[in-house]
Amino acid sequence: MKQSFAVIGLGRFGLSLCQSLTASGQDVLAIDNDEELIESYKEVVTQAVVADAQDEEAMRELDLGNFDHVIVAVGQNIQASMLATLIVKELGAKHVIAKAETAMHGRALSKIGADQIVFPERDMGVRVARRLLSHNILNYLSISDEYTLAELQVENEHFSGKTLAELDFRRHFGLTVVAIKHDTKVVISPGAHATLAMGDTVSVVGATMDVEHLDKKMSE
Amino acid sequence: MKQSFAVIGLGRFGLSLCQSLTASGQDVLAIDNDEELIESYKEVVTQAVVADAQDEEAMRELDLGNFDHVIVAVGQNIQASMLATLIVKELGAKHVIAKAETAMHGRALSKIGADQIVFPERDMGVRVARRLLSHNILNYLSISDEYTLAELQVENEHFSGKTLAELDFRRHFGLTVVAIKHDTKVVISPGAHATLAMGDTVSVVGATMDVEHLDKKMSE
Amino acid sequence: MKQSFAVIGLGRFGLSLCQSLTASGQDVLAIDNDEELIESYKEVVTQAVVADAQDEEAMRELDLGNFDHVIVAVGQNIQASMLATLIVKELGAKHVIAKAETAMHGRALSKIGADQIVFPERDMGVRVARRLLSHNILNYLSISDEYTLAELQVENEHFSGKTLAELDFRRHFGLTVVAIKHDTKVVISPGAHATLAMGDTVSVVGATMDVEHLDKKMSE
Amino acid sequence: MKQSFAVIGLGRFGLSLCQSLTASGQDVLAIDNDEELIESYKEVVTQAVVADAQDEEAMRELDLGNFDHVIVAVGQNIQASMLATLIVKELGAKHVIAKAETAMHGRALSKIGADQIVFPERDMGVRVARRLLSHNILNYLSISDEYTLAELQVENEHFSGKTLAELDFRRHFGLTVVAIKHDTKVVISPGAHATLAMGDTVSVVGATMDVEHLDKKMSE
Amino acid sequence: MKQSFAVIGLGRFGLSLCQSLTASGQDVLAIDNDEELIESYKEVVTQAVVADAQDEEAMRELDLGNFDHVIVAVGQNIQASMLATLIVKELGAKHVIAKAETAMHGRALSKIGADQIVFPERDMGVRVARRLLSHNILNYLSISDEYTLAELQVENEHFSGKTLAELDFRRHFGLTVVAIKHDTKVVISPGAHATLAMGDTVSVVGATMDVEHLDKKMSE
Amino acid sequence: MKQSFAVIGLGRFGLSLCQSLTASGQDVLAIDNDEELIESYKEVVTQAVVADAQDEEAMRELDLGNFDHVIVAVGQNIQASMLATLIVKELGAKHVIAKAETAMHGRALSKIGADQIVFPERDMGVRVARRLLSHNILNYLSISDEYTLAELQVENEHFSGKTLAELDFRRHFGLTVVAIKHDTKVVISPGAHATLAMGDTVSVVGATMDVEHLDKKMSE
Amino acid sequence: MKQSFAVIGLGRFGLSLCQSLTASGQDVLAIDNDEELIESYKEVVTQAVVADAQDEEAMRELDLGNFDHVIVAVGQNIQASMLATLIVKELGAKHVIAKAETAMHGRALSKIGADQIVFPERDMGVRVARRLLSHNILNYLSISDEYTLAELQVENEHFSGKTLAELDFRRHFGLTVVAIKHDTKVVISPGAHATLAMGDTVSVVGATMDVEHLDKKMSE
Amino acid sequence: MKQSFAVIGLGRFGLSLCQSLTASGQDVLAIDNDEELIESYKEVVTQAVVADAQDEEAMRELDLGNFDHVIVAVGQNIQASMLATLIVKELGAKHVIAKAETAMHGRALSKIGADQIVFPERDMGVRVARRLLSHNILNYLSISDEYTLAELQVENEHFSGKTLAELDFRRHFGLTVVAIKHDTKVVISPGAHATLAMGDTVSVVGATMDVEHLDKKMSE
Repeated sequence: MKQSFAVIGLGRFGLSLCQSLTASGQDVLAIDNDEELIESYKEVVTQAVVADAQDEEAMRELDLGNFDHVIVAVGQNIQASMLATLIVKELGAKHVIAKAETAMHGRALSKIGADQIVFPERDMGVRVARRLLSHNILNYLSISDEYTLAELQVENEHFSGKTLAELDFRRHFGLTVVAIKHDTKVVISPGAHATLAMGDTVSVVGATMDVEHLDKKMSE
Repeated sequence: MKQSFAVIGLGRFGLSLCQSLTASGQDVLAIDNDEELIESYKEVVTQAVVADAQDEEAMRELDLGNFDHVIVAVGQNIQASMLATLIVKELGAKHVIAKAETAMHGRALSKIGADQIVFPERDMGVRVARRLLSHNILNYLSISDEYTLAELQVENEHFSGKTLAELDFRRHFGLTVVAIKHDTKVVISPGAHATLAMGDTVSVVGATMDVEHLDKKMSE
Repeated sequence: MKQSFAVIGLGRFGLSLCQSLTASGQDVLAIDNDEELIESYKEVVTQAVVADAQDEEAMRELDLGNFDHVIVAVGQNIQASMLATLIVKELGAKHVIAKAETAMHGRALSKIGADQIVFPERDMGVRVARRLLSHNILNYLSISDEYTLAELQVENEHFSGKTLAELDFRRHFGLTVVAIKHDTKVVISPGAHATLAMGDTVSVVGATMDVEHLDKKMSE
Repeated sequence: MKQSFAVIGLGRFGLSLCQSLTASGQDVLAIDNDEELIESYKEVVTQAVVADAQDEEAMRELDLGNFDHVIVAVGQNIQASMLATLIVKELGAKHVIAKAETAMHGRALSKIGADQIVFPERDMGVRVARRLLSHNILNYLSISDEYTLAELQVENEHFSGKTLAELDFRRHFGLTVVAIKHDTKVVISPGAHATLAMGDTVSVVGATMDVEHLDKKMSE
Repeated sequence: MKQSFAVIGLGRFGLSLCQSLTASGQDVLAIDNDEELIESYKEVVTQAVVADAQDEEAMRELDLGNFDHVIVAVGQNIQASMLATLIVKELGAKHVIAKAETAMHGRALSKIGADQIVFPERDMGVRVARRLLSHNILNYLSISDEYTLAELQVENEHFSGKTLAELDFRRHFGLTVVAIKHDTKVVISPGAHATLAMGDTVSVVGATMDVEHLDKKMSE
Repeated sequence: MKQSFAVIGLGRFGLSLCQSLTASGQDVLAIDNDEELIESYKEVVTQAVVADAQDEEAMRELDLGNFDHVIVAVGQNIQASMLATLIVKELGAKHVIAKAETAMHGRALSKIGADQIVFPERDMGVRVARRLLSHNILNYLSISDEYTLAELQVENEHFSGKTLAELDFRRHFGLTVVAIKHDTKVVISPGAHATLAMGDTVSVVGATMDVEHLDKKMSE
Repeated sequence: MKQSFAVIGLGRFGLSLCQSLTASGQDVLAIDNDEELIESYKEVVTQAVVADAQDEEAMRELDLGNFDHVIVAVGQNIQASMLATLIVKELGAKHVIAKAETAMHGRALSKIGADQIVFPERDMGVRVARRLLSHNILNYLSISDEYTLAELQVENEHFSGKTLAELDFRRHFGLTVVAIKHDTKVVISPGAHATLAMGDTVSVVGATMDVEHLDKKMSE
Repeated sequence: MKQSFAVIGLGRFGLSLCQSLTASGQDVLAIDNDEELIESYKEVVTQAVVADAQDEEAMRELDLGNFDHVIVAVGQNIQASMLATLIVKELGAKHVIAKAETAMHGRALSKIGADQIVFPERDMGVRVARRLLSHNILNYLSISDEYTLAELQVENEHFSGKTLAELDFRRHFGLTVVAIKHDTKVVISPGAHATLAMGDTVSVVGATMDVEHLDKKMSE
């Protein structure tokens, strides 16, 4: 079932959000007080309107209380971010996501009523740092504090040209292989005879320490 | 083996990056032309210096050509971002990551020599959009254009209190279960007798369409 | 017992507050980020320090969580007003009074945790309007929506030179006289023989409508 | 009889003044040089016009000399406040009230001809300070330097559940009780059998020292 | 007897005033809030101090109330001009001259207490206009609305080489000759045999109309 | 015969010049690049146009080369003042008067071709200084470096009530009396029996030192 | 054959370029984001349009990829200069000349794809310096690091009135005379009997050191 | 003999000028009012001082009247450029070169006394335009309006591999060959047997039309 989304504040984050939602066929209302910006959004979203997010009356007229999701993506104007959040919550919006600049800003938004807080630049800083620190890990997903799903690239002769049986990730690293990607082809739950080639990516699941151990071995 | 990192430009993204790297025990040199900002970084990183990223001489004196990784995290000043990238590449830096504001900015940085481009706000917009559009998916990892590893939350009575044998994800959804998390306890490659409870998260791997199908079913 | 007060933001309102509290022998800590302003406060209050109210660390060092009353008198910077309120509440301050610019600003401050909101300019607008609309009422105090204590000036020959017995405010206006002021002399609960002279002020208590009726009669 | 009011300068104070006067059914002319502000006032006051208060000709055309009351509520622009006052007095306005920022500003306005000076932020600072310093006093009205009418809240078990005869305020405190409020019900000049309950407010009249004495006792 | 002068505000007018007074051997105190400006005045006047003319305390410390003449030469800052005038009058200054920008500004300064108002640019505009409109008049001095003392240059053959007797200014123009200047030599109350040469200046006194008549004749 | 005047730059000096010239029935073209200012001049001068004095083409279209007098009254913008002067001289204007801020500015204007330079604020500073330094001299006119025509006010009992014969200015001061003003009545070349009264003004001519001597005597 | 030129950025350099190209009968498209500037260009070039050089879409619509030459003459905005260069190269422009502020800026432009870099102010500084350092050299053209073509002025009696045979430049200076200019008449490859006169210019070719030697001799 | 140079205003043009002069071993005094800029010049020139070019006294102390050449390279501040020129000429500087922004600016500088005017950006615009319009001309030098010395590159098979005798430039184009450059080797006044190769540059002298004719032929 289609949902309704309103995005307030159209910086890089808001723009990317609108494009992704629209690409998924959702109805998106984009709001900003910059007329020129709104003009350029007319083709991207369902509806784009010039309005001041701190103007209660304007927000009411846009019926923001009845949207399924309101995202307050207002950039560096902390006042606007907080008052816009207050207004949409008072108008009855059930699910409000607000973008925060700092941890303190995030806590203030929670107090005011935001249901969820996002920190795009902070989170991306964390992700880039992790990638820099790993060797072959292309991507990862933390299941818990101790367990991780990770995708590693085979760039080491020791691992290429061997079958999973020969490599026996479970015995040597305590890890389960859940998928292998060769070029664009993916094998889910590959059998023991599956062979790794240079440039393949192998997805494993297991303890985070074990994943890091494998990462190191694969880069030796 | 310890690596050396230099981060130029200390906005939210740069700060988060520095904190993550330092938390992993890495040596980090933080550079910005805002004296006050640098003062507050002194305790966060190994070394924090006031310098203009567009000043060739200053960059040379900081020996940026010999760092393992240089991250040009300069914010909205596109000129500074481009000239800083040029300078560190000319000084011989092997791996330069640059933060871009727009796609065009990203392409220009590549031409100038950046080895990797990141778009923090754009990428986070995409992630938030995906999360908004899913129902029970807490997190995901795209293996390829067609295959996904995803973590879903059990919030539906139809799925809770049943064993994996009863639910048979492979038959009904074409998906393999790679882990189940119950509170903070994680079972990797759970057996057929493992039971799902309300609030558990189940990690599956398979075709993206099948993951989305499961997501819908779990929210009915 | 002496109490401790901290006043953040030293505009006209904050200055007046500091002066009144100091004049009553209280210990007052005055905080502002304007160095010049703080310099000129050094003689007015117990302690005046330059600090940024949005800087969590600085507020903690001033031990704001342990003051009896913290007044966030920050002027037109709504962001600073909200973040300062958040910080002092998080530090544990029991009683926080915050100055608001608009009703919406006031509601946001309440959500963030302010224990009391004041609207100096709005309230003074109301008071000046009431005084403009009355004739002989010098001052008033609303006991409830319907009852008022008011102080009226005698400027009408019909009322001067007469005893309270002759004027019988209770019979003619339904009001009780609680005090008469003649020059600087005040008679509390004056007897029936007390006489009103031109220029005297008479304090009465009763229904607001009756007070307004008397006000009109006294100006005929 | 209806009077005519002109309010020059529509900040928080001017707005509040206009709203109070209009709510009392008065005709109010609101003047400001901010077009947007005036637009939003059109529904609040009888007439709202864009005009520069320092433009003699414009003020003459608005016939400001013939209004009953002209309030120069111009904010922080001291020059505008002084020249507007000069102009309206030269046009013949009988009663001009001017808002002052500082004591010196107030004296200058008097010299220029203002009939009455108000200091909203300073006065509200004094009021808030007094309230902070008292314990149970909700409100007060100074009859003279020595006598006060005050409204106190009963929050002390020693005072609740007792009759006025038992408490005998006159003997113990030298004060006369002029009213008791129980919830929304008010009893004027209550008899000796009237009983005080927790949460009631009691209005008393008497020497200021005696009121302060009672205030302390009620908070022990 | 030497007098004391204080000049507040050091624009072109204030500078010129200070230089003229100092050149006449007077003691001059120059005041401005521009530090750099004051530095460059140190050699021009007796004493030059950096101070804010709107700061009551600073003006009192400079003992402005006891100067013989205080000139408020503050430029285009009308607020500063008015408050400085108020302060020096309140401090007891007997003779205060204030420079005004407009007629209205001048009237306000008078109300506030300035003893004399000057309008340098306006007055010089009038003087330049008069000079432009005359032909041979080099300078003039209005004795009253109808009588003028004027200095005219002889550039007309009709007038040169003739004695005063021959020219008989009294008969032909109703004017009295009070002085003749030939090169740098001046003859006061010249006799009938005095002769005018080309380039001489002749000072006459009489009705303004008659002076203008002569001016025209001398330029025919 | 009527002349044509163009005034470029409409500050206080330019305005005053325009008003004086127009009041004398002259045709005046007023030029400024401030549209609002020009609008308000439409009633003052023959023609008022919005134009940039540094725009050669615009000046040519206004035919400035054919005006009898062009006054460059541009205020503090020295560049505009110099380029406007260059342009009007190049267009062929015969008589160009330029207003200068400083002596150096004046010399540059001369080099560029201005026929006459005026320094309104400097000159008025000199005049005010002279008036401050004299006692009874109301006005003066320097005939040469050594001779002055001056108008003095009689405020001293020693001089009032006496005839010119008794006072014998020529013998005691070496001065000739050229006029006496009593109220609004003026007597030119008064006879020996003319009497001076308190408040009269007496115009004398003679050596500057002698005038200063008289000034002192009259104030003893 | 006519070529097409587009000039982006219309400062002094861009203007001069447009004028020269248009004077040679070329079609020139002038682009700038300053509307007023473009208006004044309408008569100078074939087509002048207001557009932002950093707006990919706008550049595409102007079909910049198909111009023979695109000159990015953008002034001091280094970001705009770089992004405009990127865009026109991506659109397929074959020959892009970009103006650089500094050497580093120039190197960045090359990396981004500019085919030729010009440094107008730097180059002119070099030329003016050379001219200052020479004595009689009016102009020169460097053939290689060692050889120069130079034009020198005859201002020395030793050289005037003599034939080339007598002067024998080749023997005395190792230089070949390629032309002699007498007033506006030029003789190419003059014969041995050609005579030099004062004020003539003589063009010689040879080693740079020899040219400098001649220059010195001619100024002795 | 060494000369002395002073360069006022250190933009790109001034910097380039200073570097060229210093590289030739000249003594250069660099002057600018930007302290940071001067600091970075300390190693480039003989002496670099912070001073305001509009400050007569400062210029006198630097003894600018006694320099052989003073270059007023002040950038876009037209006022500073004109007043600096005035000052150095008044101080007696014999040779003053001034940089102009526009033709009008140039004419004003001449009037003020500049001995030579340069227009770097305009001149470079002309040069770049000429180069764009030619095909093989690398460089040129105008001897007169009709004659040119030009350097062309051989990129056409028709011209390569042939001797000068075969090509006979004089007969076919009316031009004299004065030099041929092959790689870094230059032959002055080459003989008839000299052969042209691809990539060589040939320097010719003759009528401008003939040069252009050759240019076209060489690009066919």
